[in-house]
Amino acid sequence: MVDASLALSLLPDALRQRRAQAKTFKDLTYTHYTDDFKHIPRGTFVFDQTVVFGYPHIGRVLALEAGIKAHFKAPFWAEEKINGYNVRITQIQGQVIALTRGGFICPFTTDRLPDLMPLAIFQQHPELVVCAEVAGPDNPYLESSPPFIAKDVQLFVFDLMTQDRIGFLPQREKQVKIQHFGLPAVPLHGYFQPNEATKIAELILKLHRERREGLVFKEDSDRDHRAKYVTGSSCIDDLRVTSDNLLDLPPEYFINRLLRLSLFVEEHALPATAELKQALGGAFLDGLSAAMESYRSTHHVSKRFRCRFRHKESALTLLDHLKHSSRHIQILQHDLYQEDGYFVLEFERIYPALTGMLGDLLAGRMIYD
Amino acid sequence: MVDASLALSLLPDALRQRRAQAKTFKDLTYTHYTDDFKHIPRGTFVFDQTVVFGYPHIGRVLALEAGIKAHFKAPFWAEEKINGYNVRITQIQGQVIALTRGGFICPFTTDRLPDLMPLAIFQQHPELVVCAEVAGPDNPYLESSPPFIAKDVQLFVFDLMTQDRIGFLPQREKQVKIQHFGLPAVPLHGYFQPNEATKIAELILKLHRERREGLVFKEDSDRDHRAKYVTGSSCIDDLRVTSDNLLDLPPEYFINRLLRLSLFVEEHALPATAELKQALGGAFLDGLSAAMESYRSTHHVSKRFRCRFRHKESALTLLDHLKHSSRHIQILQHDLYQEDGYFVLEFERIYPALTGMLGDLLAGRMIYD
Repeated sequence: MVDASLALSLLPDALRQRRAQAKTFKDLTYTHYTDDFKHIPRGTFVFDQTVVFGYPHIGRVLALEAGIKAHFKAPFWAEEKINGYNVRITQIQGQVIALTRGGFICPFTTDRLPDLMPLAIFQQHPELVVCAEVAGPDNPYLESSPPFIAKDVQLFVFDLMTQDRIGFLPQREKQVKIQHFGLPAVPLHGYFQPNEATKIAELILKLHRERREGLVFKEDSDRDHRAKYVTGSSCIDDLRVTSDNLLDLPPEYFINRLLRLSLFVEEHALPATAELKQALGGAFLDGLSAAMESYRSTHHVSKRFRCRFRHKESALTLLDHLKHSSRHIQILQHDLYQEDGYFVLEFERIYPALTGMLGDLLAGRMIYD
Repeated sequence: MVDASLALSLLPDALRQRRAQAKTFKDLTYTHYTDDFKHIPRGTFVFDQTVVFGYPHIGRVLALEAGIKAHFKAPFWAEEKINGYNVRITQIQGQVIALTRGGFICPFTTDRLPDLMPLAIFQQHPELVVCAEVAGPDNPYLESSPPFIAKDVQLFVFDLMTQDRIGFLPQREKQVKIQHFGLPAVPLHGYFQPNEATKIAELILKLHRERREGLVFKEDSDRDHRAKYVTGSSCIDDLRVTSDNLLDLPPEYFINRLLRLSLFVEEHALPATAELKQALGGAFLDGLSAAMESYRSTHHVSKRFRCRFRHKESALTLLDHLKHSSRHIQILQHDLYQEDGYFVLEFERIYPALTGMLGDLLAGRMIYD
């Protein structure tokens, strides 16, 4: 059985095999599993005898109706999937911290927590783990953000867990707590029967038109079965923001999104309009053209990030983390200044593969393919 | 030194290491190098003591002006690059045969040679090797063909070699022989100085607008240095005909063409028009949508090929070859019938990866990515 004592007892082995890592955040020295290791999921966090299990993978279906039919035996909730990064928020030794998917304490999210959600819940339930998406243009990790967030970041709760236990609190209990503590939650789009694929298709098309990411289905049953399904427009958005990163991401990243988009278009009988094709072609061309302009003027291909902190120290901690954790991607500090009571950090991520390749190609390098 | 005697003496080793293969075509038993092996190029053909060296790789530049500047020290010819498959035609024991790039005797091209070029040249020069591109919609290998060939196939000579020798006949000697024997040749678009990149840019833009493939540059010097450069429209055409083959080709195939296209658009300052974006987006979407329709109606993703033969036996030999040589791609014989004095072979190539993946996904399979 996977429980906290297993996560604790496997830790020395995992550390030796470099599947777990020790880290320090302020006065907390903690460990996190950096890979799946003998049933302990990646991202599992350990401080002293306290374990916060990693957030599990949710399977993706690429065919909506067939996927629902194949996987759901009972009614299910459809919650909105938000295009951001996954965090688990919990209290350790009186400090509320935010863990990334990988189990690292995120200096940015942790710093901003008081702005993002009411924290009173942790006084009453100190063992609770709040699972949420943080999204918005001013975040340090992702180039994309939902169209409905104009600036900074917002937080959207979608699950509750308990320290030392694997698995989620039941949906109804979660909803009660979200209401009671006024937590910002992901939009809940309804409760459906497995034979209501047509209604869900209408819903997903509405989200597609609004350029929102998609849905997560959660079965109303003890097994709490789950699946996710995304809109066609989210595939195009992904391609648009990453096309200037064409050689630094695995090529499957692009192939998968093309396949998802095509299946979406086909299942929902969307006309293959000039507008849709143009959006897809532009997603590739505009990003690559920006990359080339960037290379011509600065001799590297990069993206600029910006995020706001309550404390200057948090910004420096984040920068230090980014510089050490991204093996391939070079980080340049650009600026750290005060604005409206916040410390604003601006930095650039350099994409080395495309930078190197463009340098060679624009110098006339001959390739044999 | 790489010469015929080396190709002959290395053959037993190459055969043992499976870098060469013995084959039979009618009454000819021959061997060909299936990989580069100790300076002997892939595609090198050996019959008895006669060697036909493999056609060498020509390097590709993705930046026209920089590429010419970096690689050409003397004037050069610009010949048209034709979108077809490479053959070497030569006479062995009184039979004129066509070798594929891999050194296999192509039953289709060999059968059709009398239709494709005058063969008198081999009476006067029995040791000659004619290097050419075969292109057109009715070919057994490629899904794409030049826009200016409406039906069947045509042959375009671009080089002459001599049996038992590596390297090409000089350009002027080649042109004299092409004229004298009335060989169909690739269009010659001019003779340029290395500082005439602007004139070549005008030429390539004309080819781009005509949806032709590109140019091969051949230096007027003893070293006979070469480079190729393709049009943006050829990249889009490649993507259009192969997008239904998205999972069976290496993903780099798609990434490379996106990069080539973007560099082309940028270097020639083409406006990123709606039309261009639409063509690129449509290249992906239309092909994948056709693949899905094909899957829904036949339960597999396939492409139909058609080619005409003078002799029924050649069609059967080709089919047999295709069935045995394509490890991943399944061939279905469809039809072989007579029409206008020819035997028409129609067959289908099945793309197994996309077929399998669509089958799974359309059945609702959940994936973890």
